[in-house]
Amino acid sequence: MSDLKLPTRAEDFSEWYNQLVLRAELADYAPVRGCMIVRPYGWALWENITAALDSRFKATGHVNAAFPLLIPKSFIEKEKSHVEGFSPELAVVTHGGGEKLEEPLVIRPTSETIIGHAYAKWIQSYRDLPVLINQWNSVVRWELRTKLFLRTLEFFWQEGHTAHATAEEAEAETRQMLDVYTDFAVREAAVPVIPGKKSAAERFAGADQTYSIEAMMGDGKALQAGTSHNLGQNFAKAFEIRYLDNTGVLQHCWTTSWGLSTRFVGAIIMVHGDDQGLILPPRLAPHQLVIVPIYKSDDEKIAVLEAARKIRAELIAAGIRVKMDERDGLSPGFKFNDWEMRGVPLRIELGPKDVAKASVVLARRDKPGKEGKSFVPQAGIAGAVSALLNEVQQALFDRALAFRKSNTAEPSDYNEFKLAVEKGFAFSWWCGSGDCEEKIKAETKATMRCIPLEQPGGAGNCIFCAKPSQEKAIFARAY
Amino acid sequence: MSDLKLPTRAEDFSEWYNQLVLRAELADYAPVRGCMIVRPYGWALWENITAALDSRFKATGHVNAAFPLLIPKSFIEKEKSHVEGFSPELAVVTHGGGEKLEEPLVIRPTSETIIGHAYAKWIQSYRDLPVLINQWNSVVRWELRTKLFLRTLEFFWQEGHTAHATAEEAEAETRQMLDVYTDFAVREAAVPVIPGKKSAAERFAGADQTYSIEAMMGDGKALQAGTSHNLGQNFAKAFEIRYLDNTGVLQHCWTTSWGLSTRFVGAIIMVHGDDQGLILPPRLAPHQLVIVPIYKSDDEKIAVLEAARKIRAELIAAGIRVKMDERDGLSPGFKFNDWEMRGVPLRIELGPKDVAKASVVLARRDKPGKEGKSFVPQAGIAGAVSALLNEVQQALFDRALAFRKSNTAEPSDYNEFKLAVEKGFAFSWWCGSGDCEEKIKAETKATMRCIPLEQPGGAGNCIFCAKPSQEKAIFARAY
Repeated sequence: MSDLKLPTRAEDFSEWYNQLVLRAELADYAPVRGCMIVRPYGWALWENITAALDSRFKATGHVNAAFPLLIPKSFIEKEKSHVEGFSPELAVVTHGGGEKLEEPLVIRPTSETIIGHAYAKWIQSYRDLPVLINQWNSVVRWELRTKLFLRTLEFFWQEGHTAHATAEEAEAETRQMLDVYTDFAVREAAVPVIPGKKSAAERFAGADQTYSIEAMMGDGKALQAGTSHNLGQNFAKAFEIRYLDNTGVLQHCWTTSWGLSTRFVGAIIMVHGDDQGLILPPRLAPHQLVIVPIYKSDDEKIAVLEAARKIRAELIAAGIRVKMDERDGLSPGFKFNDWEMRGVPLRIELGPKDVAKASVVLARRDKPGKEGKSFVPQAGIAGAVSALLNEVQQALFDRALAFRKSNTAEPSDYNEFKLAVEKGFAFSWWCGSGDCEEKIKAETKATMRCIPLEQPGGAGNCIFCAKPSQEKAIFARAY
Repeated sequence: MSDLKLPTRAEDFSEWYNQLVLRAELADYAPVRGCMIVRPYGWALWENITAALDSRFKATGHVNAAFPLLIPKSFIEKEKSHVEGFSPELAVVTHGGGEKLEEPLVIRPTSETIIGHAYAKWIQSYRDLPVLINQWNSVVRWELRTKLFLRTLEFFWQEGHTAHATAEEAEAETRQMLDVYTDFAVREAAVPVIPGKKSAAERFAGADQTYSIEAMMGDGKALQAGTSHNLGQNFAKAFEIRYLDNTGVLQHCWTTSWGLSTRFVGAIIMVHGDDQGLILPPRLAPHQLVIVPIYKSDDEKIAVLEAARKIRAELIAAGIRVKMDERDGLSPGFKFNDWEMRGVPLRIELGPKDVAKASVVLARRDKPGKEGKSFVPQAGIAGAVSALLNEVQQALFDRALAFRKSNTAEPSDYNEFKLAVEKGFAFSWWCGSGDCEEKIKAETKATMRCIPLEQPGGAGNCIFCAKPSQEKAIFARAY
């Protein structure tokens, strides 16, 4: 609502982000430090994300359930790496109903342990497998340096938890869900992502293997936008999740978990946004199109609103999410800026002259000024809008991919590498040693984001130690 | 999955309920006493409830958002009756990130306080009103006597929170949402409910007025199935939620809150279930119809499954939620019992003879044995199934309403009253005094459920003290 200008992204990317999230009313700070309020506009975006993911989960045979928020503290301690990873981040409930508890409880930082406990009870035989459950909820990991959507004490996500009879099935599930995340990111969010394998140092606490999708933000930094973990038999052994196989032998299950969170909202903001504000991908935008009626006299108002309502009805009937801005006392120019800042993909401007000509001005958010405007007849408006929404969706993806490509280098030596990670991704041979990874991080602040599944083949020399290397990895500074 | 018989409802209604919830795999006990795991079948039912409510909320102009789980303990203390009501039930977080917190936090028992704090910041002018926000989440109220869905330490619900410029608008909103709950209960859940006003003693902590919908369970007891509160200016004053009116004067807002929880799942179980198990209303049932293929030889299996898949495809195309039971090694009789116990409204039995005759056996869950079975041609099956689903939906409502009527008495004296509340509802004149209400409760265990909005008119004498009374109230023992 404010007329104040945002800082440009070039001036201060971080401050551009912080102010934009507040001004677009996506989220707000909560009274408890580290916590976030997701406001209706931000939540509507998240609801569209959840719907797009949920239908993919169900299409691959998963069902939803709800496990409790409160976990006995002792559960977290049952899996060795899990407790090391999560202990420093726990919120601990020590009192309930006015009394001190015998055993402290923790608010779930993630649900592997409590779900492992339930699976041990529910799974008896190979006939009970696979178990494919997802849960939409919020989790708490203690964190005081708040960055809305990206780093908050409580965040919203889905966590999938599956149990399988064999190692192969668990690995196939882990990879399938990585594919689901990739497909969602590309097709729904227009965010190009690199699916790949994490290093041992960056693995989930308790996983044998972690995969992630990595995206490049508008400042060249990386953001991990979703993860899928093959947990091997680690949690199955800690919680005794066992089944009788078809020969009557008792076996431990193989489990996976995978999650995507409200961080993804941050990715959408930072991949597509420009100096005017948000640009939301049409498939996820709460409002795909805003109609701004323009009039001066009361007579004009009557004629314009009548035409505008007819157009709105046609667009809604075609399944398009439409917002009509009928606010009094605000100029059309103010409304244009306001909805541009909020990233609505398309705008219809409708004044008395347009009514007379039975046309509208149709403006694209992703192309500024006259370049993005066209006159479109009111007859057949729904078809024209649908086609343009698809075009914008594709254009956003193409632009983000071109940006990533132009900011990804394949450095031939460590000096080039250091320059590359100043501005974007370095795609480099890496020997696989945690030692090189750690030194690179200390010297350049760049971390090993992932070993992309798509590899060039052949071999080369580690960018740091020059030892023979079989795989190339993405290194970048990251959120 | 178990072949064991449930206790009958007449033998032990409470144990019938407890065993049914577990056996139908709706929910399970969690390791933390008082907590509940909602299993996939139960969660699918809740998802259908949420969808039916959410579309009604959005149609009446509400939007969703997400407020934090953690609330400063001092917030709860800002509204006098609120703190008295909720203090004994709080879960308190005293440690986070390995350190003792300066101010303890509580896990939300409900969100009036934290939302009030946000509204005070967001609302400036009459132009910002009304604010109409809903949230789907879980809340924690300390409770160790667990009864799955009905009484748990953590439960799932929606909580709507609105702010208005005038007392009249707040009252209209409170009543509108009561109407929404009534419409949902009747049309979606086939649960007849009595909308009415609560007594002062039964009001929400901090409300000026509480309304509820009350339903009669299969044992004659009452269950409060949804509540809508007019909070007056209590929270607006405690949290300084103010707006500049159109004459430039600073005014306190008028607020409301309203909620419906997973208790409603308990209501569905106890209103419709019979001694064989659940009977789910078609509009909310996760599976509206189950197909049980029947065969002995491999040849029969091929022919039956082919026909069954064709039928399934036709039903799915018509928007019907279909489950096909292809489990090996289980007899058709076992499967019939299993799906009856799980309350699937319709069943198709399909054997080689049915394939030969191009028909199916279509069985209704709500009518036992032969009475509920018919032979239906495979041609046009989707139309026949849709019509029968509507018929079952209506029949469940009619049966529940008839049951409530036959177990509701209008006692003419206190002795009749005492007998009436042994088996169901007593609809009686009440003077409105908390003293009579308290004594009735102490002597009969019956509480004042609500003063129905629909009143016979006229006047009478209080069932307890015989003083002149203007209103009739529902008294009953309650969950």
